[in-house]
Amino acid sequence: MDFNLSCPIPKSEYDKVLLAHGGGGTLSHQLLQKIFFSQFKNDLLDVHHDGAMFEINGNKFAFTTDSYVVTPIFFPGGNIGELAVNGTVNDLAVCGAKPLFISAGFIIEEGFEIEELWQVVLSMKAAADKAGVKIITGDTKVVDKGKGDKIFINTSGIGVIEKGINIAPNNCKPGDVILLNGRIADHGIAIMSAREGLEFETEVVSDSAPLNGLVESILSLTKNVHVMRDPTRGGIASALNEIAASANVGIEIYEDKISISEEVKGACEILGLDPLYIANEGKILIFVPESESDKILHVMRTHEYGKESQIIGRVTSENPKIVLMKTLIGSKRVVDMITGEQLPRIC
Amino acid sequence: MDFNLSCPIPKSEYDKVLLAHGGGGTLSHQLLQKIFFSQFKNDLLDVHHDGAMFEINGNKFAFTTDSYVVTPIFFPGGNIGELAVNGTVNDLAVCGAKPLFISAGFIIEEGFEIEELWQVVLSMKAAADKAGVKIITGDTKVVDKGKGDKIFINTSGIGVIEKGINIAPNNCKPGDVILLNGRIADHGIAIMSAREGLEFETEVVSDSAPLNGLVESILSLTKNVHVMRDPTRGGIASALNEIAASANVGIEIYEDKISISEEVKGACEILGLDPLYIANEGKILIFVPESESDKILHVMRTHEYGKESQIIGRVTSENPKIVLMKTLIGSKRVVDMITGEQLPRIC
Repeated sequence: MDFNLSCPIPKSEYDKVLLAHGGGGTLSHQLLQKIFFSQFKNDLLDVHHDGAMFEINGNKFAFTTDSYVVTPIFFPGGNIGELAVNGTVNDLAVCGAKPLFISAGFIIEEGFEIEELWQVVLSMKAAADKAGVKIITGDTKVVDKGKGDKIFINTSGIGVIEKGINIAPNNCKPGDVILLNGRIADHGIAIMSAREGLEFETEVVSDSAPLNGLVESILSLTKNVHVMRDPTRGGIASALNEIAASANVGIEIYEDKISISEEVKGACEILGLDPLYIANEGKILIFVPESESDKILHVMRTHEYGKESQIIGRVTSENPKIVLMKTLIGSKRVVDMITGEQLPRIC
Repeated sequence: MDFNLSCPIPKSEYDKVLLAHGGGGTLSHQLLQKIFFSQFKNDLLDVHHDGAMFEINGNKFAFTTDSYVVTPIFFPGGNIGELAVNGTVNDLAVCGAKPLFISAGFIIEEGFEIEELWQVVLSMKAAADKAGVKIITGDTKVVDKGKGDKIFINTSGIGVIEKGINIAPNNCKPGDVILLNGRIADHGIAIMSAREGLEFETEVVSDSAPLNGLVESILSLTKNVHVMRDPTRGGIASALNEIAASANVGIEIYEDKISISEEVKGACEILGLDPLYIANEGKILIFVPESESDKILHVMRTHEYGKESQIIGRVTSENPKIVLMKTLIGSKRVVDMITGEQLPRIC
């Protein structure tokens, strides 16, 4: 091991990790690119995807990992355990994989209530059953009081990818339309409202849901799907920017097609947040050739988690690597990659 | 989800998670059995193994996960990054699998030095290269200062198991001999000495090492291996107790065959610790039919990580679920499962 290899992020820039390094925006990307990808690079590393893919004896698999550090751990519409299962199920699903097996690694702070642990575990079990996956291996570590925060959960997952499915961020092509399965920003605002004690006429609840069933119903209809992505940390803005950059295409979205609840709009105004950048946990962006979009939309709208599906945009050859939004008033604005940290510890 | 399902650990017993619940002993087992296994139970769950096994289209795989919370993160002989890779490589290897792919999930405390992160990542890369595995997917979360402890790393891993290999804790049979590949307790004492500022004439360094090469050389010689286990948290005493309980056999070990360095013996005396219960990160217990043991020992002793391999004990039909040690003075003593927490955050 050569410790003389010098760190690629110069001290003059950042010498300590900031919350924004975990926010899913520009600083996260810098950390990934310069520290992790530069070292771990190999032919299978999932540089621009939600999971890695590999093949063994002609069988194609997806493999993904996520750690969950959401606070509070219980929030309207879910808790950290359910989120940890759904998040990993969804990361596999958007690779075009059928999720099969999940691991669960717990880092528990000394003093955490056993009753709360029990409720987290119950809801993981329920989420796994709902998604049709098995939790087959696990690990528990306990850290001293003050060295953790109640509970962190890592879930990793393995899924199988049927032959003929080829989904990757750089697969999208000019002319593709972009489908979205419903209202955005509910998860992030549910977390924020729990943290800040905000109250709405109608409670905003997390959209946390397993999306593998929805994906399966689409892929059983057609394998002609180019990209899928669940817009979690950093919201749909960050996901679309990543895809535009990765495929070197332009993306145009239509503000009037992007559904946001009145409560979420109100909360975003109060908190000074842009819903395009807010995390979702039950949403999926799907890039398909225009010719396939009608039948896919139809199937999506008949699914429990796709009733409000819409075409929200399209891929263009103009403005490569740029996401533009046609606003309600008819102008266009650039939707940048987020730079800082809107909402720490949202998932 | 039914939140009325009542928690199986009554409040009168423990209402909060203790450090000992993560120590690999009796309390850890209670937490696993009553909380995790009771809910997650399925046909593939690795209740008594270091990883789970599953089969897809005739291909057999192992899947494992571990979170690393060791403190200090840099210690004599290694750091948390190298440990995270070796630990998961070893968990796969002791399932009889060839480790292929690793995921890396980082939970970083705000304010952690980027330079330290860089060094951790460099050593993960070096460890992965040495073990011949690829890190193919990852995740980074940042938690606020005071809500974590520098860095926690989860690694999950996937390996393939060759046909004809069938290794599981309940496979051992009376008459099997137990092989161990060298000195015990170095890892735990290296960590403790770094924490407590102990100094020895010769520095005690962690034995952290990838064991997949050693395992591969054994399994290419014979597939007639019954059990393998890396005795990490809880040491060889806990590993042997788990195996004895799982296979409903007795285990007898010989004190004069268990190698411990003078420095480690001294440190254990000062700290009031029993080396049988101290974590190792480069050791493996192997249960094989006596008829196979000579040739396996020979192969082990020619390997970089097996030079000091010994037969340290045998499996008996007497005293099921009990581990007995023949001491240096000729008496026998019961080597119990550890109840509390000898060394928190050792891995």
